[in-house]
Amino acid sequence: MGGVSDDVLLARAFLNRVAEPASIPVWNAVRRYGPVAAAQAIREGLVDDRVSEATAARAAHVDPYADLEAGQRHGIRLVVPESDEWPHFAFAALEATALRRLETYVRGQRKHAEGGELIPPLALWVRGTTELAPVGVRSVSMVGARAATEYGERVARDLAFGLAERGFVVVSGGAYGIDAAAHRGALAAGRETVVVSAGGLDRAYPPGNTNLFERVAESGLLVSESPPGAAPQRRRFLTRNRVIAALGTGTVVVEAAHRSGAMNTAHHCTGLGRPLMAVPGPVTSTMSAGCHRLIAADEDGARLVTGLDDVLLTIGSAGDLPVHPPAPSSGTDLTARLDLLDQPTRQVFDGFPPRGWVGPDRLAVATGLSPLAVIRALPILEVSGLVEASDAGYRIARPLSRSPAAAPAAASAAASESA
Amino acid sequence: MGGVSDDVLLARAFLNRVAEPASIPVWNAVRRYGPVAAAQAIREGLVDDRVSEATAARAAHVDPYADLEAGQRHGIRLVVPESDEWPHFAFAALEATALRRLETYVRGQRKHAEGGELIPPLALWVRGTTELAPVGVRSVSMVGARAATEYGERVARDLAFGLAERGFVVVSGGAYGIDAAAHRGALAAGRETVVVSAGGLDRAYPPGNTNLFERVAESGLLVSESPPGAAPQRRRFLTRNRVIAALGTGTVVVEAAHRSGAMNTAHHCTGLGRPLMAVPGPVTSTMSAGCHRLIAADEDGARLVTGLDDVLLTIGSAGDLPVHPPAPSSGTDLTARLDLLDQPTRQVFDGFPPRGWVGPDRLAVATGLSPLAVIRALPILEVSGLVEASDAGYRIARPLSRSPAAAPAAASAAASESA
Repeated sequence: MGGVSDDVLLARAFLNRVAEPASIPVWNAVRRYGPVAAAQAIREGLVDDRVSEATAARAAHVDPYADLEAGQRHGIRLVVPESDEWPHFAFAALEATALRRLETYVRGQRKHAEGGELIPPLALWVRGTTELAPVGVRSVSMVGARAATEYGERVARDLAFGLAERGFVVVSGGAYGIDAAAHRGALAAGRETVVVSAGGLDRAYPPGNTNLFERVAESGLLVSESPPGAAPQRRRFLTRNRVIAALGTGTVVVEAAHRSGAMNTAHHCTGLGRPLMAVPGPVTSTMSAGCHRLIAADEDGARLVTGLDDVLLTIGSAGDLPVHPPAPSSGTDLTARLDLLDQPTRQVFDGFPPRGWVGPDRLAVATGLSPLAVIRALPILEVSGLVEASDAGYRIARPLSRSPAAAPAAASAAASESA
Repeated sequence: MGGVSDDVLLARAFLNRVAEPASIPVWNAVRRYGPVAAAQAIREGLVDDRVSEATAARAAHVDPYADLEAGQRHGIRLVVPESDEWPHFAFAALEATALRRLETYVRGQRKHAEGGELIPPLALWVRGTTELAPVGVRSVSMVGARAATEYGERVARDLAFGLAERGFVVVSGGAYGIDAAAHRGALAAGRETVVVSAGGLDRAYPPGNTNLFERVAESGLLVSESPPGAAPQRRRFLTRNRVIAALGTGTVVVEAAHRSGAMNTAHHCTGLGRPLMAVPGPVTSTMSAGCHRLIAADEDGARLVTGLDDVLLTIGSAGDLPVHPPAPSSGTDLTARLDLLDQPTRQVFDGFPPRGWVGPDRLAVATGLSPLAVIRALPILEVSGLVEASDAGYRIARPLSRSPAAAPAAASAAASESA
């Protein structure tokens, strides 16, 4: 499995099952201590209240060996962030939103929202022939109503066909209606499509799409946070939706009722700073009501798209950077921001010269990290507002470099790594 | 005819026929010299080149007596700005845009655009039982494709019905398709609707809507800039569209092809600073393509509306003031702006104290003008940036009052009224 040690794989399989997806305490523990130490601490109950609350019920019962074995029996592999197959590019925005959310969490102000927090997955179960890593570089998520109309299914299928023909990976949720039409459109173009499921990949849900999923697995991917054998529960659909939104360069909603899973995915899309699009329809159709509301929204609204050209223009104008640079959070000082970085990212930041532009190669030499590790760290530093990017490379963000105390070495010394 | 002298009525009937509608030179001449003197000057050829160019071909042939007689025979009256029936409120935005355009015109920089300039009508031929004056205070213009679909006609009819029930006058162009559906919806609610025609009101155009127009005339109004007997020419449809846009507090487009008269009306609506709305439809319908383009437009776009509630919200949030305050035109000094005012409006401006808030009543006493004349002048002074309005009344606009040379009396002496 791509050079990942068994220790890490077992730890991630354990972590992925011991808590519900998108648990900020567990994600934070893994970020801080690494998966192996975090898993061990959880198993031994040596964790703070918030981690304990999220994990205590299952800590003694999870058997990661059994999950990995069940996966192997069904041709399902576990893809982890330490693997080359992890979609770092697609998940950069998810990492960024999670880091911003963490600031609030650390200060104890986190509001508990039901499901769907924009926290990266700890691992993904994957079945299929292609690689997960490139998904998100050139991909479009398409979601919509299960009880779609003929009109909606036709639009979804045609749009997916056109996008697939132009080399975009079509990502959806594998449900009846719009989702299935989108997958079928991509398959009809003979291209890759990705089904993100809420339950374990050893069983098809919904069962009526069994044949569709088999065809998808032949040329594309089935993806789930849930281990083999896990039933698709309601909360899992909501957390699943953030993965759909994160795997698309943008998300297109084709028919959605006012309150629906598609609207939830749309919400995640704008939360990630990705372009959201919606297809209009007759105002007399309740299946288009959600799309119309998204288009008419003053903030975080959707762009009206009528076909392939509109989608290509919207995705194109969103540029290559999948993340909105977040507004610098006024209440957060440098120390707090540094404190939020994981160790390799912190190391890359410390490798920056006080002024001047540098490239990843020079940072790799300065830090002793691999170029890949540096490249993974840079978007996080950028969205944290700690470094700036340009054609010339990267440099310490201007407001920081003006303050002598904020030069990396000094800041590094000043920041207390409170464990 | 509402206390308007025969001189004025004949002059306006002459002016309205001697040039095509929306002629800026003729409108400017009337504004400066009044209708009677302007008409006489045109008849005698004592006008500048631009007025002559717009009027010379017909000056000797127009017979306003015959037009007024033909009108009387057909129950068609001529409504003029000097009459109490003139829709001053609805046309305030047209006056404002015309005044802004005049600045460019006076400097000789006017570009000739084909038809549809936002210049107020010089007079309107009207047939029907209600009064034109209040139209625009609580009215919605609805326009759309002649070759409408069943879907579009249903939406137009239902929307017009709902608006009419709530006391909005529905204004449209009397064409087949969406226009007719809108008029029928208002009639079904037993309320007033206004047909703005491109040709003379003595004949129905299109002929197939003859019965519809008869029903409209019984409880509402037929309106046209064209005198009785005038055929509806292409250019007249374009200039007619500005009247439709101006008579609505906002305009709703229900189905429109990419290039269509409805799109032209939509353009006028945003040009007047009025709220533009569009109804989405299937992306597979060419009849909705124009609506979708308006909704997706980055600037001057339309608000997506799915029904009555959306329209009411949009009209409501546009407030009572039907005019966007224009950005102060940087290149225009005070003298030039004063020079653009007609005599009564200039008189009202001169009646302002150098500082402090005043109401219309005090201005009427100060100027010797009637309160109505003062009330008509104030929106023009406001959109010209010469006075400011608040709950406390009106005052000389701040940038002017700070400069001693710009106090009304001084400015009045400085401004040369170059004729």
